Amino acid sequence: MGDPLGVGPETILGAWSDASVHAVCRPLVVGHPEIMRRAARLTDTSVEVVEIDDPADALPSPALLPCLNATSADVLDAAPATIDPRGGQAAFDALVRAAKLALAGDVDGLATAPLQKAALWQAGHHYPGHTELLAELCGVRDFAMMLYLADPCTVESGESRAESGRQNPGSRLSASRCHNLPSSLKPQASGLGVVHVTLHMALRDVFASLTEISVLEKIRLADSAIRHIIGRRPRVGVCALNPHAGESGLLGDEESSIIRPAVEQAVREGIDAAGPYPADTLLARAHRGEFDTVVAMYHDQGHIALKVLGPHRAINVTLGLPIVRTSVAHGTALDIAWQGRADHRGMIEAVRLASRLAAAKSAAKSAATEQIRAVF
Amino acid sequence: MGDPLGVGPETILGAWSDASVHAVCRPLVVGHPEIMRRAARLTDTSVEVVEIDDPADALPSPALLPCLNATSADVLDAAPATIDPRGGQAAFDALVRAAKLALAGDVDGLATAPLQKAALWQAGHHYPGHTELLAELCGVRDFAMMLYLADPCTVESGESRAESGRQNPGSRLSASRCHNLPSSLKPQASGLGVVHVTLHMALRDVFASLTEISVLEKIRLADSAIRHIIGRRPRVGVCALNPHAGESGLLGDEESSIIRPAVEQAVREGIDAAGPYPADTLLARAHRGEFDTVVAMYHDQGHIALKVLGPHRAINVTLGLPIVRTSVAHGTALDIAWQGRADHRGMIEAVRLASRLAAAKSAAKSAATEQIRAVF
Repeated sequence: MGDPLGVGPETILGAWSDASVHAVCRPLVVGHPEIMRRAARLTDTSVEVVEIDDPADALPSPALLPCLNATSADVLDAAPATIDPRGGQAAFDALVRAAKLALAGDVDGLATAPLQKAALWQAGHHYPGHTELLAELCGVRDFAMMLYLADPCTVESGESRAESGRQNPGSRLSASRCHNLPSSLKPQASGLGVVHVTLHMALRDVFASLTEISVLEKIRLADSAIRHIIGRRPRVGVCALNPHAGESGLLGDEESSIIRPAVEQAVREGIDAAGPYPADTLLARAHRGEFDTVVAMYHDQGHIALKVLGPHRAINVTLGLPIVRTSVAHGTALDIAWQGRADHRGMIEAVRLASRLAAAKSAAKSAATEQIRAVF
Repeated sequence: MGDPLGVGPETILGAWSDASVHAVCRPLVVGHPEIMRRAARLTDTSVEVVEIDDPADALPSPALLPCLNATSADVLDAAPATIDPRGGQAAFDALVRAAKLALAGDVDGLATAPLQKAALWQAGHHYPGHTELLAELCGVRDFAMMLYLADPCTVESGESRAESGRQNPGSRLSASRCHNLPSSLKPQASGLGVVHVTLHMALRDVFASLTEISVLEKIRLADSAIRHIIGRRPRVGVCALNPHAGESGLLGDEESSIIRPAVEQAVREGIDAAGPYPADTLLARAHRGEFDTVVAMYHDQGHIALKVLGPHRAINVTLGLPIVRTSVAHGTALDIAWQGRADHRGMIEAVRLASRLAAAKSAAKSAATEQIRAVF
């Protein structure tokens, strides 16, 4: 559920009424059931919230929302849309419980709603976010994030759910920009993933962190991660660092000294990698379907493209964990939380991708097919 | 015409058959007429190319293309789609002639096709491109470029003209992404402009060039430039340099030490400026119509967004010249030149915007309205 005081609960409710979610998994919510009931009233959703103690008892449907209570009732007294340690504690408790369910095999994957770092810290849990806490719970030190857009050719307009009158709130936008593409360029339904070599650091610190090894590692990671999603050998495009890819050294030399050798090594290892290409044209080409995944050198390279193309649909996938985990790419949005205005398309995409990854993992483990359980 | 050996001539021919071009100006081409005839044959366009000596003799229509011969016949013997000094010389001669026409008031604006820097240099003209040559011809030292997308809500798919069978090649894509926007967020037909504080330099050199003064100057420039296009007080969004706008100093301090003071000064000067905002969310908001223009700190910030949104429609506007000048944002594209595959939507946008800017300039000079002449 993430922080109950943010937009998490209402985005879960919104996603719950989307048929495509129930078509791919048997979802259940981990968090306080009363929060979900309040969110149902807020969004005027006629869903019955049923408290359960065991995932095996979940009988989810668009009309029935099983909720496993993992948190103290304290949070029910906290004011919505605020930073409050009770919200941070509730997010912490829900995540720990959900992670344990996943590690035990009682659920097949997690899709997490956003938490508020300040509230988490006020509750005494000093993690940068969900991901670092999950890594600790899983006993993992090396992990990475892939920013992912399920349908990069469908660019959304700016309407929010409330503004469009809530008709069919979770539907994909109708017009696909890809209909006229020649078949050789037809993008995969599988979307576009971006892995960043550097992420949350000052731009001036990027240069010291870019090495042939760090770029190569992220090329390998991007290749294997998107391969799980699309089920075939992916085409990996690698961004240059400098404008015009350094224009033959006139505008910087990291392309020749660091990035190109890493790409060449990746190709020797059998990866279908190409680059470095100027980031602006590479991301435009990837948007048109010429690449399945892009390796970006720093945060804004990939985020600008995916946020512009799908601000409410971009999600994150955590790589390197023993469990399946996706998350929405937006935050708790306290400025609009608990007003019934939150956009839930990111949550739908997060659940759908978690289900797809869990199915792929399950198929890899055994030939037996089984339905997938997802947890918000 | 730019370099006759690149995609310029065929993009001019493509734009020529677009009715919207003739609706806003009386165009004429400056370059060798025989090149235009070859481009007409290449693109199977039934247009008559008529050589003229004086812009006053031009009687343009979709069926009649007046061409003012400014270049030597040497270029007719050069191989298409190559880097050749004869191509560079022809581009040079055409630009000098067109600029003189504009300075004399014989034409109202220029829209330039791309040239090939290497060919220009081989011809003995050591300019980085059209813009620097134009600045010299105009006796101007301070100039700047605005990257501009006329219709940021219409995101194009990847089909090229040849691939789509050439039906209605210059038409706008049919579906606008903006139809569902609430009226308060409805973007202007006037589009989205980006001015960069730094542009063609290595990323690691950006930091030394960012000062409160350099940011403030570009905010002022963005404000006045887009004001000419949209005809009202614009909303100016200013990008942060670091991810998450530095996250309160944790990820860099240029936001608080350089950018914020510049924005505050701009606001004191009466500019409707806001920021610094994280570049990824700011550009997504600008795409939705919340800002008319964005000030980016470095090349890729603005270029990634506009190339992803409209790779074939983004154009450049030169600011600071005494004459009106726009240009396509793409290059000579020698890999596809003279194959009839070039996308001419950028050329259409370049001509349309040059006409609009010329009309605004003319309206500002006198109350008399007159038709606009544009020159390719």
